[in-house]
Amino acid sequence: MAVYTDVSDGDIAAFAKQYDIGEVTSFKGIAEGVENSNFLLMTTRAPYILTLYEKRVSKRDLPFFLGLMEHLAEAKVPCPTPIRGRDGQVLRELCGRPAAIISFLKGVWPRRISLFHCREVGRALAEMHLKGRDYPLRRSNALSVAGWRTLFTACQSRADEVETGLADTLAGELVLLETNWPADLPAGVIHADLFPDNVFFDGERLTGLIDFYFACDDHFAYDLAVCLNAWCFEHGGEFNVTKARQLLSAYRAVRPFSDSELAALPLLARGAALRFLLTRLYDWLNQVEGAMVKPKDPREYLPKLRFHQRISGPAAYGLA
Amino acid sequence: MAVYTDVSDGDIAAFAKQYDIGEVTSFKGIAEGVENSNFLLMTTRAPYILTLYEKRVSKRDLPFFLGLMEHLAEAKVPCPTPIRGRDGQVLRELCGRPAAIISFLKGVWPRRISLFHCREVGRALAEMHLKGRDYPLRRSNALSVAGWRTLFTACQSRADEVETGLADTLAGELVLLETNWPADLPAGVIHADLFPDNVFFDGERLTGLIDFYFACDDHFAYDLAVCLNAWCFEHGGEFNVTKARQLLSAYRAVRPFSDSELAALPLLARGAALRFLLTRLYDWLNQVEGAMVKPKDPREYLPKLRFHQRISGPAAYGLA
Repeated sequence: MAVYTDVSDGDIAAFAKQYDIGEVTSFKGIAEGVENSNFLLMTTRAPYILTLYEKRVSKRDLPFFLGLMEHLAEAKVPCPTPIRGRDGQVLRELCGRPAAIISFLKGVWPRRISLFHCREVGRALAEMHLKGRDYPLRRSNALSVAGWRTLFTACQSRADEVETGLADTLAGELVLLETNWPADLPAGVIHADLFPDNVFFDGERLTGLIDFYFACDDHFAYDLAVCLNAWCFEHGGEFNVTKARQLLSAYRAVRPFSDSELAALPLLARGAALRFLLTRLYDWLNQVEGAMVKPKDPREYLPKLRFHQRISGPAAYGLA
Repeated sequence: MAVYTDVSDGDIAAFAKQYDIGEVTSFKGIAEGVENSNFLLMTTRAPYILTLYEKRVSKRDLPFFLGLMEHLAEAKVPCPTPIRGRDGQVLRELCGRPAAIISFLKGVWPRRISLFHCREVGRALAEMHLKGRDYPLRRSNALSVAGWRTLFTACQSRADEVETGLADTLAGELVLLETNWPADLPAGVIHADLFPDNVFFDGERLTGLIDFYFACDDHFAYDLAVCLNAWCFEHGGEFNVTKARQLLSAYRAVRPFSDSELAALPLLARGAALRFLLTRLYDWLNQVEGAMVKPKDPREYLPKLRFHQRISGPAAYGLA
């Protein structure tokens, strides 16, 4: 949960006047999102989300993220869309931070994952991949294989404080992934962080994908790998092959993937596990005194990594 | 800001079915309130607030607080009202905590205090005092003069870590207040914590008082003293006599106070300053590692205490 910047009643009233969204009737910081400050802004017309971009999001990347959301929403991918001000602009400044108002999405993110969640996420992810193809902006994935060694080096000497042998595990895995990472798979705009708290549902209906602030260009199948790790393991760490089958087959029904993508999936899933293991480990070892966000336990990703290391091929994900 | 308990989508859907409030369409933790977990619950009918009472609020006191809100709302004091479930009950349990749904109030709390805010708060406080007179339940003020020595004793040895000489200042003030605290002023139900973040405005119109979880029976004038300290000092610590005059005269126009109440005001204001100084000092010295709420600086209350110590009488508050 996070609200890093206090926005006053006067600030918000003046800010909202730059938009054709009605009069502000309520304004509350919400305990969602880790990187930014988010507020629920209610007006005489509708609810909206106001986001202030804090320092962990690069201002340079904001046009990519906001443009992508607008592009996808126009293409009917369920996601929030940035609201343009009276001047036509989406991005402006509030309390010294870049700020934007985006549309409010109905729905609640699921804490306990059922099969229908996996199916809906697979389908929505494929739609996002297809509809993102004609998005004109590009952003490379700073948190793909080329970025992992920097993170590892920063954590290596203290990794074993978290789990004995962790530094060796990470070192070995990193070399393997650097050596074997595929280069020629179908690629385009991916979400790159499609965890359950970024997907809203109204009952069994997926109402939207949110939080596009890690979106970038990368292999489509890497996005699937991130989702396999985020949606298809139980809390005890066991892989649920039925969930994986639902997710992958729903995806494939919308965007059929090639044999080479399927064959690469175990390696990509190891990479996706290593990526979240490394960023969580970094945040765990570099906790800021008085921080408002409790870092997530990196160890959650160790059994996920081990699962993908052990399997003999993509058949373990339940596809015939 | 605080959300101490995570409530799942399944939990909230099942909980909401116990009420006639429509279908849940959205559910977000909000960054308001220090003692409890608060959620904004949107349904097909209206927005509501769901509160889970965490351990700092005594379960035994909840019928007093919730009953008071219902009583005041029925008497047209602008404040949220608890929503009764299909079984007629207001208080039930969610995620192992006492929980209640209350109505949603429009408005935004003011960060920069203008004269009209003070006037509206004075008027609303007087209305609350009058309308609370026939509320049948009673709750003594655990944080009045009889409770301060316990707090002081717990902080005494470390008070000077916060400000040199603070322990001596507090000791002297405490003896004076214990000796001179009035016993026979008009009394009834008071809010006891009417800070700006507990009062919502829509433009210049006060839309409601919230957070009745310190409400109790005490001198009405003590509630005024709390408000003088909370609303009539500038950020630099200077007393703003114009704001005080607005607050007190707006109050007096609704509920005329006696000469003895006015005469007692400087002493009550010293007591109100000491009360917040002591509780903030206690929280400051007893910070919990990883706590999500940053404690407020107790030193903010030192210049307020000193102001009331130095004045020669209630004329300093701007009343003719």
